[in-house]
Amino acid sequence: MYNYKIIIQYEGTKYNGWQKQGNTENTIQVKIEDVLSKLSGEKVEVSASGRTDSGVHALGQVANFKLSEKINIDEYLVEINKYLPKDIRVISMEEVNERFHSRLNAKSKTYLYRIDNSKFGHVFERKYSLRIEKKLNVDLMRKAAKQLIGMHDFKSFCTKSKMNKSTIRNIFGVEIVENSGIIEIRYTGDGFLYNMSRIMTGTLIEVGLKNIEPEKISEIFELKDREKAGFTAPSEGLFLVKVEYE
Amino acid sequence: MYNYKIIIQYEGTKYNGWQKQGNTENTIQVKIEDVLSKLSGEKVEVSASGRTDSGVHALGQVANFKLSEKINIDEYLVEINKYLPKDIRVISMEEVNERFHSRLNAKSKTYLYRIDNSKFGHVFERKYSLRIEKKLNVDLMRKAAKQLIGMHDFKSFCTKSKMNKSTIRNIFGVEIVENSGIIEIRYTGDGFLYNMSRIMTGTLIEVGLKNIEPEKISEIFELKDREKAGFTAPSEGLFLVKVEYE
Repeated sequence: MYNYKIIIQYEGTKYNGWQKQGNTENTIQVKIEDVLSKLSGEKVEVSASGRTDSGVHALGQVANFKLSEKINIDEYLVEINKYLPKDIRVISMEEVNERFHSRLNAKSKTYLYRIDNSKFGHVFERKYSLRIEKKLNVDLMRKAAKQLIGMHDFKSFCTKSKMNKSTIRNIFGVEIVENSGIIEIRYTGDGFLYNMSRIMTGTLIEVGLKNIEPEKISEIFELKDREKAGFTAPSEGLFLVKVEYE
Repeated sequence: MYNYKIIIQYEGTKYNGWQKQGNTENTIQVKIEDVLSKLSGEKVEVSASGRTDSGVHALGQVANFKLSEKINIDEYLVEINKYLPKDIRVISMEEVNERFHSRLNAKSKTYLYRIDNSKFGHVFERKYSLRIEKKLNVDLMRKAAKQLIGMHDFKSFCTKSKMNKSTIRNIFGVEIVENSGIIEIRYTGDGFLYNMSRIMTGTLIEVGLKNIEPEKISEIFELKDREKAGFTAPSEGLFLVKVEYE
């Protein structure tokens, strides 16, 4: 078997997220598997670095899949993109070691959350940001963001899953940049729990609105209670930027 | 009468251009006049620096209108944007001299045309650029662009109008920037004839595709024949960036 790694961009607006589930055909995984299966004549399964939720966008999702025959990558890329909907693009493809697994081998991921905090709302940002009308205090948000960095138990910052897995993650960096009223928050870490980037964002927004004091972050960690953190910021502002491997 | 100058942003996708015409309610002028008339209780007419065609976007369209009463600008701005559709925003407003006229007093205008020349097409650029799949030669385009600069008779670069007006315009600059496969062409000039920025763009694209030699531009000027220039690039890639006054 030949193992191929691909990098995928998508606008998530129209889709029920990455993952194939139940009867819905409307996921990014299904769209890509359909095209690859048609092109190869095999039943192809595509495994991504992680699921993205309904409405979440990707600038650099990584996935891999196996084919029994070696293919011409340049030609394949053209064909894949010809048949994919225009809001999903495979922007690169390479053959990798047979043991490469896009989820298990991922060393770091970067997410971006975009907030439109401009005075009247940006005309061209509506689908790609969360609109917050009230002026956010970005200095306070930066102060709180610093405390998210490091190895922590993020139990308060995730939607509870049924599985009893570890909720300890290592966040390498949280960067906040403001430009013409658009606030961009970039999170890099070794992994993200379910809804973690959206709950961290909701918490930082509540800090910016002065509902939560930046000093409270360490207390929220200690309490290990989802209720203590901020709201879950909606999917339209979230982008999976990149996934890195060793 | 009090004269107010406003700066407007809009995503043109859904609208039949700026100008009120015949029975269509679906123009940006109509949307703004409706809101201003409701807020003021007067029949307000809004005059812009120039019409934009159906589908053309604006980052900084300028317009002015008169009211019989002095208003609180900050409050008015909030109210206007509350009632306007979200793809039209009035981003600033100021009282100006009664003789100020947004079209007659304009000294220069800047248009931007965006082309998606990336390998597979950018997922997030579909509504705001023209997709050209074949690789464009940007160096040739820059060579041709230089020849558009200056005072010329742009008769070959406009859609014929019935009126026998001068077709001489002064183009101050044409700048071409490429970044991750997105080519941005910025035109600044004292005025633009009907479809002029779109025909200049179509011509530059044909230069980039090697259908027209860059040296042919001066010949196209001399022939004063619309048929000699390139195609009219579609509206979705065009933005009115700003209008400047003395």
